[in-house]
Amino acid sequence: MDLNAYLTSGARWIEAELDRRVPPADTRPATLHAAMRHSLFAGGKRLRPILCAAAATACGAPREAALLPAAAIECLHTYTLIHDDLPCMDDDDLRRGVPTCHKVYGEAIALLAGDALQALAFQLAAQTPVAALEIVRELAAAAGSQAVVGGQVEDMLSEGQPPDAERLRYIQQHKTGDLLACAVRMGVLAAAGTPAALAAATTYGQAIGEAFQIADDILDATATTAQLGKTAGSDAAREKNTAVSVYGLDGARALLQERVEQALAALADFPGDTAPLAALARHIATRKN
Amino acid sequence: MDLNAYLTSGARWIEAELDRRVPPADTRPATLHAAMRHSLFAGGKRLRPILCAAAATACGAPREAALLPAAAIECLHTYTLIHDDLPCMDDDDLRRGVPTCHKVYGEAIALLAGDALQALAFQLAAQTPVAALEIVRELAAAAGSQAVVGGQVEDMLSEGQPPDAERLRYIQQHKTGDLLACAVRMGVLAAAGTPAALAAATTYGQAIGEAFQIADDILDATATTAQLGKTAGSDAAREKNTAVSVYGLDGARALLQERVEQALAALADFPGDTAPLAALARHIATRKN
Repeated sequence: MDLNAYLTSGARWIEAELDRRVPPADTRPATLHAAMRHSLFAGGKRLRPILCAAAATACGAPREAALLPAAAIECLHTYTLIHDDLPCMDDDDLRRGVPTCHKVYGEAIALLAGDALQALAFQLAAQTPVAALEIVRELAAAAGSQAVVGGQVEDMLSEGQPPDAERLRYIQQHKTGDLLACAVRMGVLAAAGTPAALAAATTYGQAIGEAFQIADDILDATATTAQLGKTAGSDAAREKNTAVSVYGLDGARALLQERVEQALAALADFPGDTAPLAALARHIATRKN
Repeated sequence: MDLNAYLTSGARWIEAELDRRVPPADTRPATLHAAMRHSLFAGGKRLRPILCAAAATACGAPREAALLPAAAIECLHTYTLIHDDLPCMDDDDLRRGVPTCHKVYGEAIALLAGDALQALAFQLAAQTPVAALEIVRELAAAAGSQAVVGGQVEDMLSEGQPPDAERLRYIQQHKTGDLLACAVRMGVLAAAGTPAALAAATTYGQAIGEAFQIADDILDATATTAQLGKTAGSDAAREKNTAVSVYGLDGARALLQERVEQALAALADFPGDTAPLAALARHIATRKN
């Protein structure tokens, strides 16, 4: 399959839906909606919604079945990025080569834009035609204190601490893996997939979640700021626990390969077309930004 | 009825449930759960969950029917308080006489504790035994950019601006009213109430929401910091649009009375015991802190 065409088509598909679902930038309060749109339409790769759609396809359903949870997960992901970039967190000025939300709209509006995007994520998830309640439950669990927010907290607490493989695994699993696994599982639920497919989605999602974070750590250690569209080398500067600081560059690369193979092995339990999920798993390991 | 006993009993009821539902302060990440608990158990009046329970009672159901949405609305309310108190927002050191979350745990953890409490609110709402999906939809709408977050944004933008009755109404309705109306409506939904009761809940909730905010503005202008447990006179210091700045003290008091009467008139459309809702509406107008 042509992954580039698939990614481009998926990004356009979800961006059109987000544009329909987020109030226009002239709807009161205009500044808030402009800030939400600034971050939502700042050129993300839309990996989570595309994974959600690919999971529906792997269950034999059309991607449209996953439209609302796909839009929801992108809103949730975008809120975490806005809050991560705030001065009291990572204090980043650039994200995907674009000024971060608080650099354009100020800290208070950025904080509130993130808050509103989290609420919007649940509003969209609750409108899914099939399995809406299960999908809301998935999303709420993945967004919570023992998932994405917990991973974020441990990541922050790990700064300046000695390398720690167990803490790193916690961070990778929860900061990144839980949301990716949630995207895939919501796609299965929206497609009325089998319990076996749902279990496979968890294995696949957690494996690519770890792979994604390891690839990120490798890129942060090896790529340039221009290549990344964000400041390179910032993990080392902050003395963060990363796959590279814990396992070294070669060890991190070997672990990355292992996780991709785990993800691919899980695909046997889906009844439909798994080519997109397979290509996405490989892409996550080899991406350049 | 004995409103004080009712309030005390309701507060204990919901606090026991929150204690069961929020991970213990030694659950990883411990700092995050400690911060969530710090703000959740800082002595709030639990007005929103009590209203939710009273609405279930007004539909002829036991308050237990409303337990999960009641816990959810308190989590959502607490998250908004944590974020409102942050330095980039109101920069408050005290809330209910207790140091604010970021004064104890730092800004980053306070931000994330608020984020996790919003997710927890949806997790709890989605577990309601009856009408869970409708309840999630209510909560998501009330939490969103055109409700509580929108009201917060307009409140912030009103600082230093000339008094503006239209903007004040927007702020009162959305910053406070939407969440109170949501609490009452969720209680009706959880009690499988009639459409007429649901409509009455909206009227009652919006009216007491405005009454609550007007009473707050009057208290800020007339009470002392010791009486309030938070800094008095802060609205005037920030040149905020309040009922007192727009209508004067007497005008604000007249408007408050009008709103309470609207709320009481709406109670005729409930089939069950409305004494608690009536007492709560009067209490909101006459409270001293």
